[in-house]
Amino acid sequence: MTDSTDAKLHATALPAYLRERHAFWHATRFSENRAWYQRLAHTGQHPRAMVISCCDSRVDSVQMFGAEPGDLFVLRNVASLVPPHSPDLSFHGTSAAVEYAVSVLKVAHLVVVGHSNCGGISACHDMCAGSAPQLTDGSSYIGRWIDILRPGFERVSARIKEPKARVAALEKEGVIVSIRNLISFPFVAEAMREGELTLHGCWIDIGSGELHVLDHATGEFV
Amino acid sequence: MTDSTDAKLHATALPAYLRERHAFWHATRFSENRAWYQRLAHTGQHPRAMVISCCDSRVDSVQMFGAEPGDLFVLRNVASLVPPHSPDLSFHGTSAAVEYAVSVLKVAHLVVVGHSNCGGISACHDMCAGSAPQLTDGSSYIGRWIDILRPGFERVSARIKEPKARVAALEKEGVIVSIRNLISFPFVAEAMREGELTLHGCWIDIGSGELHVLDHATGEFV
Amino acid sequence: MTDSTDAKLHATALPAYLRERHAFWHATRFSENRAWYQRLAHTGQHPRAMVISCCDSRVDSVQMFGAEPGDLFVLRNVASLVPPHSPDLSFHGTSAAVEYAVSVLKVAHLVVVGHSNCGGISACHDMCAGSAPQLTDGSSYIGRWIDILRPGFERVSARIKEPKARVAALEKEGVIVSIRNLISFPFVAEAMREGELTLHGCWIDIGSGELHVLDHATGEFV
Amino acid sequence: MTDSTDAKLHATALPAYLRERHAFWHATRFSENRAWYQRLAHTGQHPRAMVISCCDSRVDSVQMFGAEPGDLFVLRNVASLVPPHSPDLSFHGTSAAVEYAVSVLKVAHLVVVGHSNCGGISACHDMCAGSAPQLTDGSSYIGRWIDILRPGFERVSARIKEPKARVAALEKEGVIVSIRNLISFPFVAEAMREGELTLHGCWIDIGSGELHVLDHATGEFV
Repeated sequence: MTDSTDAKLHATALPAYLRERHAFWHATRFSENRAWYQRLAHTGQHPRAMVISCCDSRVDSVQMFGAEPGDLFVLRNVASLVPPHSPDLSFHGTSAAVEYAVSVLKVAHLVVVGHSNCGGISACHDMCAGSAPQLTDGSSYIGRWIDILRPGFERVSARIKEPKARVAALEKEGVIVSIRNLISFPFVAEAMREGELTLHGCWIDIGSGELHVLDHATGEFV
Repeated sequence: MTDSTDAKLHATALPAYLRERHAFWHATRFSENRAWYQRLAHTGQHPRAMVISCCDSRVDSVQMFGAEPGDLFVLRNVASLVPPHSPDLSFHGTSAAVEYAVSVLKVAHLVVVGHSNCGGISACHDMCAGSAPQLTDGSSYIGRWIDILRPGFERVSARIKEPKARVAALEKEGVIVSIRNLISFPFVAEAMREGELTLHGCWIDIGSGELHVLDHATGEFV
Repeated sequence: MTDSTDAKLHATALPAYLRERHAFWHATRFSENRAWYQRLAHTGQHPRAMVISCCDSRVDSVQMFGAEPGDLFVLRNVASLVPPHSPDLSFHGTSAAVEYAVSVLKVAHLVVVGHSNCGGISACHDMCAGSAPQLTDGSSYIGRWIDILRPGFERVSARIKEPKARVAALEKEGVIVSIRNLISFPFVAEAMREGELTLHGCWIDIGSGELHVLDHATGEFV
Repeated sequence: MTDSTDAKLHATALPAYLRERHAFWHATRFSENRAWYQRLAHTGQHPRAMVISCCDSRVDSVQMFGAEPGDLFVLRNVASLVPPHSPDLSFHGTSAAVEYAVSVLKVAHLVVVGHSNCGGISACHDMCAGSAPQLTDGSSYIGRWIDILRPGFERVSARIKEPKARVAALEKEGVIVSIRNLISFPFVAEAMREGELTLHGCWIDIGSGELHVLDHATGEFV
């Protein structure tokens, strides 16, 4: 029982403000939707789409897409990145979530949501540009994670030199790279062939709230 | 340009209902908070806490904790699991997010949120109980991901035999295992020693909306 | 050292009841949030809003808005009044606080909070109505301070004759006058033009706890 | 009606999160104390002490001193500064509040609360040290306000050279200067002579929550 003992020793009571805000939610939003929550508990979830979004505290896809409980299966990681298919034995949290959404929940859409002012993308830019050695010494989880986007950096840096514009382009390239990687999963390709799954990419500007959608014909965000 | 060409070929326009709901959000919630979003875009995020929650479409920690834009850095993966510290070179999305929250954003709290009726936990139970061979043949990302919780299953199955009760206990054991794994990260342990980071665990019942908080003294959820 | 000598001679030990209440706070609320306070000490404050409220011991905006440490930059003066922009060399404590909030902290909202049973507003009414000569002989700081609201009194007294109703109306007129004066500051007007700052007015009834919000369309509190 | 028209045009509805948090407060803390609030509304306030504190969002003297509605008359300005007595005709918000507390409310204690990591004190240090020209060109309200503490800077800089230690000392010197200035008000000196008013100074460390009290015998904070 060492493990749970550790947890016992280290976990502390939930901060009061979170308990209070949960109480307010429970007395309002939850109470108004109690019947629906009970249905969801008994009949399970049947979300129409999966959203792959960023952990960033400023970007909440659930609210942005006016989603109700049960509507969206949401994965949130650093920079909304999806790694390529790689059948090894290590822990692939993102790939497992995609597999669960497509093979178990059978969602109809996979939506990758990038955003402006993304700290992860900016770190990737600095790392690939050689100005962030601390991310490349192998000890940084962030550095290894954003390495997924290195091929995207190569393409972007080849056509854009100005740093600020390059970072902005990399935010959108990240969405394209993730969509490309999604296609590399057999169960994704299969569902697409069956016409049961579609892929979508978009990018949101935090300051203006505007959503730019990836146009499959041009590869541009409009 | 093969890569982005792939994306062009496969990504399609965003489903109309998502575009419409975004438009509605933009005309209401966003417009009312435009000044705050602009400030957030220019001054960056300074979230007080990171929440590690599940992708489940029925559990939205942001709404449950009445969080505003900028309040919570949210990671969502299958079953809110955190793998142990392992300095290899593979992609660790969850660990990267924890590192970013603690080392870059310097959040004060890490909150692991488990929930009832969790498909990932249930799959872990069946896999560990030997009744889900398709998850153990090495080809399933889900199987490999939920293997993080195998030690938890051993502890739970040793003291609880009834399957339904055992799954429920495993949902809470998952929170304890994740907290234990969080402590294994050097940057987490260091921030805790400095008194600048606290760990918290809780479990929410979807049907009743009740939140059970991990009591560090007893290891029970109350 | 004459100055500090004066202080030495005149300052006495903190009353025991304040020391005891601080000790209680430190053992409870502070201890539970120690990690957050340490983060705030090291990373600085990033409040979303500034509240301009009254010194009145019965009106605590921090508690009324469920604010956590770091949430609200709070100015409290007599009657929540803001003087107009006046670039002279005298000490402008209120204007300095507004400048600090908008130009340094870059808050997104300025909220002026008036309240019922306000002694300062009542004194302003009596002074302007000519029944409080001691406030107008130039020796009273209170009299000079609440003179900020004299234009408001003229408007209110023109349409309301009954003293009690007139004082109540003046409490709300004070909020409108302060908002008008806020707009006279170049840095406030500039931030509003940039869409990075919004102004808000409200009035709270101490006895009922009800909050009346200034409706920008009608200028009424609803 | 130009004035209120301006306000009508510029004030917008209160941000939803503040309305929601007020609703939670009203349903909990307020409801539990409704009888007391109604008493306070009808019989007026009779606070025992006045606290002169900082606008800083991390320092809430009301909570720190476990104050209940009616307990503390609270002035909050930048750096908790009190200007000296100066019988001119300009707006003196801080002096008016002190006059109101002493002459009208007849509080028994005036408590000046300084704190660590104070942005206003730090700005004063930089300005007086000559490294913040933007604060001295006469156009900054902040610069003119913190000029109150210039004499304190002279004393501190004479005995402490290391910048960090000097700023920390200046935070405490600010409390001493404010107490000295309080004594310069005739109504304060008079109430002290009558034995009806005492002055107190303290300084709180945000990170540790510790309160250091000004010892009148030594002029030190212990």
